[in-house]
Amino acid sequence: MFDIPVKKVEIFEVGPRDGLQNEKEFIPTEKKLELIRLLRDAGCARIELTSFVHPKWVPQMADALEIIDHVDLSDGAEYNALIPNMKGFLRALETPLTQVVTIMSASESHNTKNLNMSVAESLEQMREINRIAREHNVKVRSYIGTAYGCPMEGNVPFEKVKDIALALEEAGSYEISLGDTTGMASPDQSFDIAYDLLKHLKHARLAVHFHQARGIEFANILASLQAGITIFDSAAGGLGGCPYAPGATGNIATETLVEMFDSMGIDTGIDREKIRKAAFYATSLSAYHRGTCS
Amino acid sequence: MFDIPVKKVEIFEVGPRDGLQNEKEFIPTEKKLELIRLLRDAGCARIELTSFVHPKWVPQMADALEIIDHVDLSDGAEYNALIPNMKGFLRALETPLTQVVTIMSASESHNTKNLNMSVAESLEQMREINRIAREHNVKVRSYIGTAYGCPMEGNVPFEKVKDIALALEEAGSYEISLGDTTGMASPDQSFDIAYDLLKHLKHARLAVHFHQARGIEFANILASLQAGITIFDSAAGGLGGCPYAPGATGNIATETLVEMFDSMGIDTGIDREKIRKAAFYATSLSAYHRGTCS
Repeated sequence: MFDIPVKKVEIFEVGPRDGLQNEKEFIPTEKKLELIRLLRDAGCARIELTSFVHPKWVPQMADALEIIDHVDLSDGAEYNALIPNMKGFLRALETPLTQVVTIMSASESHNTKNLNMSVAESLEQMREINRIAREHNVKVRSYIGTAYGCPMEGNVPFEKVKDIALALEEAGSYEISLGDTTGMASPDQSFDIAYDLLKHLKHARLAVHFHQARGIEFANILASLQAGITIFDSAAGGLGGCPYAPGATGNIATETLVEMFDSMGIDTGIDREKIRKAAFYATSLSAYHRGTCS
Repeated sequence: MFDIPVKKVEIFEVGPRDGLQNEKEFIPTEKKLELIRLLRDAGCARIELTSFVHPKWVPQMADALEIIDHVDLSDGAEYNALIPNMKGFLRALETPLTQVVTIMSASESHNTKNLNMSVAESLEQMREINRIAREHNVKVRSYIGTAYGCPMEGNVPFEKVKDIALALEEAGSYEISLGDTTGMASPDQSFDIAYDLLKHLKHARLAVHFHQARGIEFANILASLQAGITIFDSAAGGLGGCPYAPGATGNIATETLVEMFDSMGIDTGIDREKIRKAAFYATSLSAYHRGTCS
């Protein structure tokens, strides 16, 4: 028999943030809130609501405060928001959110391009953010982007990913999510990175954040599960991909993830029919899905 | 480390047959031959060229004899053709082909609908085909459709699949390919069926023939590989799906399969760039790809 001892996994829903952030046309706040309601109704218990990125860079997320204002943060789910830097973190601190999500890349080139900082500088900021977060009883989840490869540098050595993960753990991040930013991961690599890193982390939890990888993304998910991963990031409708932006590929579709785990007898806590409804709604917000392939 | 002891796999290319057979508009023979040439040039060493189905049912395959006439069958590759029944087999026998591929389903309803025979009647015909094939030094490969589930009956018991596989082996089929006809397989099921069946088969080889399964088809491939499967059916361009025909989903894309195996250090004998070229050409022959999503 197939040896998957896991009977329960967590899905970390990133649709309202990672799924929508690339949409060129502003999506009315009410529609974003409706998507969040549908996700919550489907059973999503961890939802990345928005991002405190400067509206100049990502105008789609300009309504971050409004979004948070209108979500019932005490309904039992875990809500959080992405913060790209200290400035965004300080804005998030003024909200009732009790969890933020930081981001940095494992490759120097990508980190510089994305955040205008070296990896060392980013880590220094992560320490500072974690220090302040502790004072405010705010939990910190941390993405490590390009963990499976960098579109600019190619291969990213595992040692580099490990060093950053351990530094983030030491800084205080309670959960680390490995990002396959541009869909470069392969199944054996997915297994190896997760398996090795799980051995090194002392208390931080480890998640994986895959993007569409030429069609083999669910083989990467399966290999990660086999390595011991039980936390998977995904976006309803698989949004986040932009077919016109090379290197930016869609997220793992939450509804497909739920179907796969369901078929394997692994509990996600998410209702299959309701998440499809949320996914359908999510795709209706996407210009690409509306226009070309509706 | 990820435990995949396999260093080499075989890809059984079904594009010219399974990939094109659903195309409504007749594709000129010369274009089919060009696809076959591109596949061969990419390193495909096993190619299903066409089908000896009655042109009334599948007009796209009406040029079966012409196709076979124009392919150099002695160029070192293994060429074969699908035969749906005894009549098709007898037509194929008149060609220089040294291998045919039979088809039947594990579920009674699907077998009846597809072949107008009961499973027992199909098996009887398989025995007869194998008997005649032996006399003519023709090898028989056999598909078992709906091996992972039936769109009409739902679950198909493993015992049923096993009984048919063993009967086909006894009849003389040298290779059996398990078909996930309408993309219902899940990873754990893919592992279990392959793993159990490999234990029971005495000398017949076992292959898997997946179709697109909600996006998790490569997880099914990976699980099958882990169970010991080393023969995978696929079609360049992932053709074979018809978005307008419920239940008919595309094949596994050969180029993606090659990419995945390449990235895992597993040899397919197929050139990554050249198979992309063949895939590009294959999709150019598909009305769906040409029209809606080019």
